[in-house]
Amino acid sequence: MPPTRRRPGGRTARIRTQVLDAVLAELGEHGYDGLTMDAVAARAGVHRATVYRRWGDVGGLLADVLDAASDDDWQPPDTGSLEGDLAALNHEIQAAMTAQPPIMAALIAASFRSEKADHAQRRLWEDRYARCENIVGRAVQRGELPPRTDARRLLIAATAPLYHHLVLLRTPSDPDLPGQAARTAALAASAGAFAEPPAGDT
Amino acid sequence: MPPTRRRPGGRTARIRTQVLDAVLAELGEHGYDGLTMDAVAARAGVHRATVYRRWGDVGGLLADVLDAASDDDWQPPDTGSLEGDLAALNHEIQAAMTAQPPIMAALIAASFRSEKADHAQRRLWEDRYARCENIVGRAVQRGELPPRTDARRLLIAATAPLYHHLVLLRTPSDPDLPGQAARTAALAASAGAFAEPPAGDT
Repeated sequence: MPPTRRRPGGRTARIRTQVLDAVLAELGEHGYDGLTMDAVAARAGVHRATVYRRWGDVGGLLADVLDAASDDDWQPPDTGSLEGDLAALNHEIQAAMTAQPPIMAALIAASFRSEKADHAQRRLWEDRYARCENIVGRAVQRGELPPRTDARRLLIAATAPLYHHLVLLRTPSDPDLPGQAARTAALAASAGAFAEPPAGDT
Repeated sequence: MPPTRRRPGGRTARIRTQVLDAVLAELGEHGYDGLTMDAVAARAGVHRATVYRRWGDVGGLLADVLDAASDDDWQPPDTGSLEGDLAALNHEIQAAMTAQPPIMAALIAASFRSEKADHAQRRLWEDRYARCENIVGRAVQRGELPPRTDARRLLIAATAPLYHHLVLLRTPSDPDLPGQAARTAALAASAGAFAEPPAGDT
């Protein structure tokens, strides 16, 4: 398929792209509190009625931005070692969370305000953590981890300190943190922290 | 000092208690979005003018609630082992975060909205983590950890998965999570994850 042919509905898809780009731009400039349907429609050059009909409200716009973020081919880093993969992943997270304008931070903040955005944010976390399970699968194949390793728990242990610092404690970005959190999780994994009980046990 | 004599300024302190109790009750019932100065004054039985003069706005009320939370003699659990202390701490965190009405969750959500509440929330985290450093100090004294252990990093590794699940991922409360996160951090600590370089290194 030639790269210029895009999947379904040219005009509808184009309007969606224009509107979601406008949401990101408005969110970056004004944050959630300054985000309005009318400003998004004006910036996107799309009729207000279209935006209201299709997205309903600001929560609907944010939910669609978050859902659109899963429509990509992002794959977790593949560096050849568990600790290397986790460190590279954490560097990506830290870079995204501290980027200017602070889109990702604004989307997380918005998920405390809008139920639609909250559900979409959870779908996006789920999508990202599911993709990252490849990191653990590869480490098992290399013999770095036992076959019955709880991938999700390992990934959350590796990444949670980043989110805790950046989203909740709001400490200044620490360039050592991504690597330290990765090393901590890798050491814990080597010590059996995420090993599941043998099959048959309950 | 007899228990009925309370520290400074009887009437001023009593008004503060009444107002902060009213903030917690209103927050529990209506969340941040439903919190108003007038409703707090009415519930507290205090003149509106007094509330406005002393606290300024809703952010000021929330900041004072958070600051008042540090005025206690809370100490971290002392169970006799590092893993036991961290698990007991995580159980306290999970219980507080999932309590009804959801006061702690509402305060964290409010910290995304109000700069005053944000700063007060950060002071409270700082106070709590500083007190928890005793857990690490005791483990060092027992010989469970090397003397040069980065207490803060260990404590954040132990508690961050709780906050990540409960505040950000919003997964249902998992009774195994407090103990698992504690065990992970204790195993990582035993493997040297939080050891600081010897004095003299930079």
